[in-house]
Amino acid sequence: MSKHPGEFELIARFFTRAPSRAVLGVGDDAALLAPTPGMQCAVTADMLVEGRHFFAGTDPEALGHKALAVNLSDLAAMGARPTALLLALALPESDSDWLAAFSRGLFALAEARDVELVGGDTTRGPRTISITAIGEVPPGQALRRDAARAGDAVWVSGSPGDARLALGHLRGEWRLPEFDSALRARLERPTPRVALGLALRGVANAAIDVSDGLLGDLGHVLRASGVGAELQVDAIPTSAALAAQPTLRRRTCQLAGGDDYELLFTAPQSAHGAVLRAAAAAATPVARIGSITAAAGLRLLDATGNAWPDADVDALGGFDHFRSR
Amino acid sequence: MSKHPGEFELIARFFTRAPSRAVLGVGDDAALLAPTPGMQCAVTADMLVEGRHFFAGTDPEALGHKALAVNLSDLAAMGARPTALLLALALPESDSDWLAAFSRGLFALAEARDVELVGGDTTRGPRTISITAIGEVPPGQALRRDAARAGDAVWVSGSPGDARLALGHLRGEWRLPEFDSALRARLERPTPRVALGLALRGVANAAIDVSDGLLGDLGHVLRASGVGAELQVDAIPTSAALAAQPTLRRRTCQLAGGDDYELLFTAPQSAHGAVLRAAAAAATPVARIGSITAAAGLRLLDATGNAWPDADVDALGGFDHFRSR
Repeated sequence: MSKHPGEFELIARFFTRAPSRAVLGVGDDAALLAPTPGMQCAVTADMLVEGRHFFAGTDPEALGHKALAVNLSDLAAMGARPTALLLALALPESDSDWLAAFSRGLFALAEARDVELVGGDTTRGPRTISITAIGEVPPGQALRRDAARAGDAVWVSGSPGDARLALGHLRGEWRLPEFDSALRARLERPTPRVALGLALRGVANAAIDVSDGLLGDLGHVLRASGVGAELQVDAIPTSAALAAQPTLRRRTCQLAGGDDYELLFTAPQSAHGAVLRAAAAAATPVARIGSITAAAGLRLLDATGNAWPDADVDALGGFDHFRSR
Repeated sequence: MSKHPGEFELIARFFTRAPSRAVLGVGDDAALLAPTPGMQCAVTADMLVEGRHFFAGTDPEALGHKALAVNLSDLAAMGARPTALLLALALPESDSDWLAAFSRGLFALAEARDVELVGGDTTRGPRTISITAIGEVPPGQALRRDAARAGDAVWVSGSPGDARLALGHLRGEWRLPEFDSALRARLERPTPRVALGLALRGVANAAIDVSDGLLGDLGHVLRASGVGAELQVDAIPTSAALAAQPTLRRRTCQLAGGDDYELLFTAPQSAHGAVLRAAAAAATPVARIGSITAAAGLRLLDATGNAWPDADVDALGGFDHFRSR
């Protein structure tokens, strides 16, 4: 934890709690962690900028939750158990109400997932949140993007698309008469699928979290693994909110919407039962939505098994470099 | 490494290099590190904001160096060997010249210190650099702030104050006719004292890096350790640039100037020779500048051993809560 004079010492106090697992927490030049013997260390960092990743005026408690959730989601997508986080925070002014709410949201999630804030930095500047999350995974058990194999089934957790549906409403792209706090929470308070990621160790091959959109993130897996996929679009679980939308909007949200932080993963066909048991153990719904193919490219199939016309795929936009031609 | 579409994929490419030590580097949801068995993990994060920590228009190569140097300095002050870093970077626009120079400065230092960039994030936003550095230290050998003991000698590396002298010139607080690139480099390209930190394992008790100013940082050690100190102000090594300054300016720079990233450390009197051998092994000059006292507070002594008048101490400003009364 860096040292800053005056009011920013006050800010730092919002984030200083005695560690229970770390050897040394906030307050020295660096924190000290004792890795579990034999485990590998998974580390990830994200930066959220006001006006780009969140609206000015976003509920600071929700923001504290989300800033940590997106990092825990990255660890979940590796099958890593989160242990510690560092928070670097720039704020335009020392606002103790904002800080109290932000830290409440962050610590509520941190404590629920048994992850400790061990260090970081606070400074004056345009509102920016950068979190580094640290976790552990046994050697060889991480769920990497390059591990999808031809013949694998493709799975997704939850029902992607609600976050994009809420974002479109808040941006004024469309108007939802039924917009409510539950739908807002799908955007602002995503659930990192930590338990599912842990349960999928030794079961799944590849995994990624859906932060950019299902097709885009699947594309990352396909490229890293050197494979292709067929996706049964109508097999993607659809929330009640999305089911009520026009088809194009619904598909845009499900296929190209980001910010859901669901897990997209592949597993051998023979692991079908094991995937369902892992999902049940993690109390997380999952659905099989496609297959990995040896041939490169991504084909979208409708309920009858027919490929989507290119024009329909184009209408969704943003992922044409993942297509089969 | 988070995923961002379009131009920011280009940016990410500036920072993607194959890891040599990490199990998995940039490009997945998280990086994977294999900790050295039996070692503790030291982690630190800093955030640098344009206009606050560096001037707009600062040489991006120097900035790439400094952004990493301040974090390596934190690890040095723990006696930790740096192994990996994560970079979260917000930029107002995709400027490939700026990125090429910034990454050149960052990687030059990273490679010189054998530390790998393993992940991070790039996004559009006000220019902000947040680095998390990870290192290793044997259990019980970290140089903590709370480990100073009454009777310890107080030491400092290098000659603190030049960075503040350069900053004052650039800010227009004073005008140095002899301002040159060497003095500018003392502000913009600090040398993290990594080798010294490693050599001081098992020799020094407490350590901190001088980022806020010598007195302020010594105050952190005194408070954490529950001790006081006497400081022989005239024993602080003085650079040629500082020796040419008026007394008050020189002392302000030496005692209250930040950004030097020298190590301030304490060691038992009996370790005097061991400290000098460690410094020689690290090719880093050190000087003994005072003693830790059981009595709380900080006394500044002149060359004749007389305490500085309070008025002189007050004139330096910014650390009156560390004084003996």
